[in-house]
Amino acid sequence: MFKATVIVKRRPSIVDPQGKAVEQGAKLLGFNNVSQTRIGKYIEFFVNTDNKENAKQEVEEYSHKLLANPIMEDYEYTLEEVK
Amino acid sequence: MFKATVIVKRRPSIVDPQGKAVEQGAKLLGFNNVSQTRIGKYIEFFVNTDNKENAKQEVEEYSHKLLANPIMEDYEYTLEEVK
Repeated sequence: MFKATVIVKRRPSIVDPQGKAVEQGAKLLGFNNVSQTRIGKYIEFFVNTDNKENAKQEVEEYSHKLLANPIMEDYEYTLEEVK
Repeated sequence: MFKATVIVKRRPSIVDPQGKAVEQGAKLLGFNNVSQTRIGKYIEFFVNTDNKENAKQEVEEYSHKLLANPIMEDYEYTLEEVK
């Protein structure tokens, strides 16, 4: 079994309205040093296989088809074997 | 200046409906090995100060007040000095 961690981020060229909105709130609360807030996703799950190649393939397909929007997001992942 | 990376996750005891929904989609697409999908946030921003203690304090306050919901989420962060 593997534990997978996937990070999904918008491409740097694509505006992030959620980050902008949160940062606007921050300014109103007096956080004047904070800038360029960008909000992505941090996804964890388990892959029930003992073969690392199979696990990789499954994580990539899952990320590509369901976790990330390949039009405007990039993803990166790590795999860690667990008992 | 510091670059901050904050990861926000629901506490393990709290159900994650978004993760469950995505995983249901995964099952329909034939991903039978994937389980316990949980979706959190991955946030990046810059803190415009040269004092690491100030940066830490600002990141913690920002996370606590705006990025995470302290009732049901935990956060962790890293700070990296940038020019």
